[in-house]
Amino acid sequence: MSKTILQNINSPEDLRKLAESELPTLARELRDFIIDIVSVKEGHLGASLGVIELTIALHYVFNTPDDLLVWDVGHQAYGHKILTGRKDNFDTNRQWGGISGFPKRSESIYDTFGVGHSSTAISAALGMAIASNLNGDGAKNHIAVVGDASIASGMAFEGLNHAGVTDANLLVILNDNAIGIDPSVGALKNYLTAVKQGKNPRENNMIKSLNFDYSGPIDGHDIFAVIKELKRLKSIKGPKFLHIITTKGKGLEQAEKDQVKYHAPGKFDKLTGEIILKSEENLPPKFQDVFGLTLLELAKKNEKIVGITPAMPSGSSLKFMMDAFPKRAFDVGIAEQHAVTLAAGMATQGMIVYCNIYSTFLQRAYDQVIHDVALQNLPVIFCLDRAGLVGEDGATHHGVFDLAYLRCIPNLIIYSPMNEIGLRNILYTAQLGLNHPIAIRYPRGRGVIVDWKRPFEKIAIGKGRLLKEGKKIAILSNGFIGNNVIPALAGIVNPEDFSHYDFAFVKPLDEELLHAIFKKYETIITLEDGVAKGGFGSAITEFAAFHNYTKRIQILGIPDEFIEHGTIDQLQRFSKIDSKNLQIIFENCQNY
Amino acid sequence: MSKTILQNINSPEDLRKLAESELPTLARELRDFIIDIVSVKEGHLGASLGVIELTIALHYVFNTPDDLLVWDVGHQAYGHKILTGRKDNFDTNRQWGGISGFPKRSESIYDTFGVGHSSTAISAALGMAIASNLNGDGAKNHIAVVGDASIASGMAFEGLNHAGVTDANLLVILNDNAIGIDPSVGALKNYLTAVKQGKNPRENNMIKSLNFDYSGPIDGHDIFAVIKELKRLKSIKGPKFLHIITTKGKGLEQAEKDQVKYHAPGKFDKLTGEIILKSEENLPPKFQDVFGLTLLELAKKNEKIVGITPAMPSGSSLKFMMDAFPKRAFDVGIAEQHAVTLAAGMATQGMIVYCNIYSTFLQRAYDQVIHDVALQNLPVIFCLDRAGLVGEDGATHHGVFDLAYLRCIPNLIIYSPMNEIGLRNILYTAQLGLNHPIAIRYPRGRGVIVDWKRPFEKIAIGKGRLLKEGKKIAILSNGFIGNNVIPALAGIVNPEDFSHYDFAFVKPLDEELLHAIFKKYETIITLEDGVAKGGFGSAITEFAAFHNYTKRIQILGIPDEFIEHGTIDQLQRFSKIDSKNLQIIFENCQNY
Repeated sequence: MSKTILQNINSPEDLRKLAESELPTLARELRDFIIDIVSVKEGHLGASLGVIELTIALHYVFNTPDDLLVWDVGHQAYGHKILTGRKDNFDTNRQWGGISGFPKRSESIYDTFGVGHSSTAISAALGMAIASNLNGDGAKNHIAVVGDASIASGMAFEGLNHAGVTDANLLVILNDNAIGIDPSVGALKNYLTAVKQGKNPRENNMIKSLNFDYSGPIDGHDIFAVIKELKRLKSIKGPKFLHIITTKGKGLEQAEKDQVKYHAPGKFDKLTGEIILKSEENLPPKFQDVFGLTLLELAKKNEKIVGITPAMPSGSSLKFMMDAFPKRAFDVGIAEQHAVTLAAGMATQGMIVYCNIYSTFLQRAYDQVIHDVALQNLPVIFCLDRAGLVGEDGATHHGVFDLAYLRCIPNLIIYSPMNEIGLRNILYTAQLGLNHPIAIRYPRGRGVIVDWKRPFEKIAIGKGRLLKEGKKIAILSNGFIGNNVIPALAGIVNPEDFSHYDFAFVKPLDEELLHAIFKKYETIITLEDGVAKGGFGSAITEFAAFHNYTKRIQILGIPDEFIEHGTIDQLQRFSKIDSKNLQIIFENCQNY
Repeated sequence: MSKTILQNINSPEDLRKLAESELPTLARELRDFIIDIVSVKEGHLGASLGVIELTIALHYVFNTPDDLLVWDVGHQAYGHKILTGRKDNFDTNRQWGGISGFPKRSESIYDTFGVGHSSTAISAALGMAIASNLNGDGAKNHIAVVGDASIASGMAFEGLNHAGVTDANLLVILNDNAIGIDPSVGALKNYLTAVKQGKNPRENNMIKSLNFDYSGPIDGHDIFAVIKELKRLKSIKGPKFLHIITTKGKGLEQAEKDQVKYHAPGKFDKLTGEIILKSEENLPPKFQDVFGLTLLELAKKNEKIVGITPAMPSGSSLKFMMDAFPKRAFDVGIAEQHAVTLAAGMATQGMIVYCNIYSTFLQRAYDQVIHDVALQNLPVIFCLDRAGLVGEDGATHHGVFDLAYLRCIPNLIIYSPMNEIGLRNILYTAQLGLNHPIAIRYPRGRGVIVDWKRPFEKIAIGKGRLLKEGKKIAILSNGFIGNNVIPALAGIVNPEDFSHYDFAFVKPLDEELLHAIFKKYETIITLEDGVAKGGFGSAITEFAAFHNYTKRIQILGIPDEFIEHGTIDQLQRFSKIDSKNLQIIFENCQNY
């Protein structure tokens, strides 16, 4: 008898046949369904639990997919996916070949816009709404659901600022739960909190200043209230703004209590909510913790050190420093552009600034890296976590473009540590003073060295290392992916033919070592966990061209397509940079 | 007797010795000085004339350079430059070897932060202010002067949102003249206009919602009022916001009347203000006009066509379409991120979107190009004006990174027309439907073909062209810079040795043609007006590596350093891609 309503819903049309009185039951069933599956299959939990009522109400009131619904970021869209025909394969969520963890146009007509990075929904929905007007579909509704952490990002403001002067039929719903992945920050957050507490009269409203028809705040878990308000707003033309208040993790006690942990809790007991802990004994550390703990260690000794994260204190492990030195470590919210230029401003005054941004999100601050940091040659230390393939988050989140987009920037040092020791020592070396900005890119997940807290050693900037000497073929790897070379060579017939070099610096290149390599070997193979076009391998071919070397060069890296979601192993295999494929490639290489 | 006050001012210390009563005279002299020089030497006029009183007041009240002053964008900083020791070389402004048209750290201790792109000042000054607190210099003042067009950009909002929750000693001055380069747009602009008209009580203030101590609006040309208010604000700690109202071009009648034209009017009569027109007869058109007029032509025939510009309707010449089809052409303000995702949203609904962004400013929307357009393979047509070296605007504005940062993005077509016909025909071809996004990059300034309005011809995507056939050496040029090859070869001893190919498509590469080239020639030279690292030449070396060609390849392009300001000819010469240097390089190449 359980889930009797949900089991009959295969599309929003089915949903719209229900009586309103049945919807609270459906909400319960939908929550249970998500908890059932995410507890076993893992994924993002809290955000979707928080918008169950909103999700049902939206598809109930609006005529999706003709009315166009855009979920910002998309962590919260599991309920949406389940109600729009993906109930039966929801257990493939985030798996190789399965459905994506985010809305995705190619997956469903109900996913009107692919998301993953924050704050795009207002711009996208506004574009749709303007297009509808031009197409003579002015009666269509266009809805952007945006969280309060996301709406504080500059891009969202740009969208609101434009929408407010249009007659676009746009409804922006602010899903205000006072948290993104970590708790929201900033002046707007404080303002919204005051609004919720009734301290700001509705008449005196910031959103109204931007010419929106503002309503709220209302309780986002009162499904009847939400439906009533959506129905009312549906009849109003032009830009509208609905402020709803929700609780992230709603319906699972532990998830409501510990919202940061239950954002994506891994496996948990679906009845008790307890997270199923894996033994971490004797595991190598996560790279993020090597960053966070090493930075804390350095900050204790050097008071000029400061840290910045745009909204990722937990994910980056800057949290360690924030807890110990709250005045010297800053969560600036989802504001990558600001984070980088803030870092530049601090650097002008002699601070040693570690600016930690996931590789994929640094794309949001590309101009600031060029224009505010590199052009002025300010020695900001960029720490790019989640570089390379990130696994289950998929195409929106892989940090695979960074080598290519950073390599063309003058003055910038680019370093990819091969392991925890490399990361630890470059963090140490950077605060000794490099006279240049540096980008340190390291992967998601764990490293390879359990005993990583060794005494600091200074790294020589721009130097490569010989890891294994051989006779005919030189393998030049950049960063952590170099660890795949070791088992590949271990399994090969003639390992004595292969040398292996760690080229952790993509810039400056170790030209002295490269000359020696190009003189000695007939074939050079480059390996990176970034796109092959324009990356490390490309730098090596440029070097060869410049110095008129005509040896054979083979570039191994991510192919020129967007890589989907799956485990990192699966995605490396797909990209042919896992150790098994490397072994095959190396063996074939002997036959040239 | 004229300019007797100004001539004795060599630093703000001299200024601070004056009686307040002398300052209006100084203001007049400073305006005259700027008009005198800019009328002959050219440069940005209107913005600086608008902030003369503010500039004097700031240096008079605050203890620069200990108090830190950041000018946003920097078009308005001529008065600042003249008062801070650069009076005597102000006539070298924007010239090769002369002072920069923008504040620049390496130029003066008073230029605390290099600018050029908009909306960075709040973040930079906040970074300085936080650093001052940490450094025990909490009494220092940190001032960001931001225009109303610039403050509407998302990045500025991010800075305000962070500043509002700090105790940083930051003063943000909103210089509200209702215009950037073109008139300001957006809901915030309307709000500010209402504030100025007294329609919003000061208590009900958006900026106060962000926790700033707001004051204003006051008349920015009343120097005594400005000084009085700055003195008052100097004694208040924490984040403060002063709203002043100014007139762009103040003090030169024509500049006040036609603010768009007098933003950077070229040479003009300093007495009458009349712009000295150069004869345009028989000159080739500006590329921007080829874009603007061709788009208009296409838009007349195809109602699905829309155009977007972030704040550059005049500079991009989208103005033509905006005038003819105001509902289908959008100036979204300084909001590159929004512009790109708005375009993506429109494209999902079948619109044919031409999104025109200067190459250097697309750096601001890099993530949106990857995440919102290319990943979803939406056929947005990016028109990147000002690609390559832009001349006098200098290091902040050169569009030289685009080939490198775009080439690594899957799904994206990249085309650089060699001339006006190429631009015209690719604009035509793109609206026929490419099933992919495309980036069309073209230079600042005039092309080479007077008679450019020829019948449309469809361009074959991904095809190169043989322009001149020779025997030994193949020159592969990308885009407009290819025109430098023609005179270089004309002057050479053995032109019969050289072939010249136009590789307008950097992506997809014409692999068929490349195979033929690599089979036929011993040496391949590539030429581009972008950074050599990671660009077109790099793509050719990758191709050669992949297909195991071991011919000699020489990459010609912009070297790996930030290129300063000067004429485009001077900068090409510096980069050794002007025709004279090319001729020498080609001649040397024969001796391999």
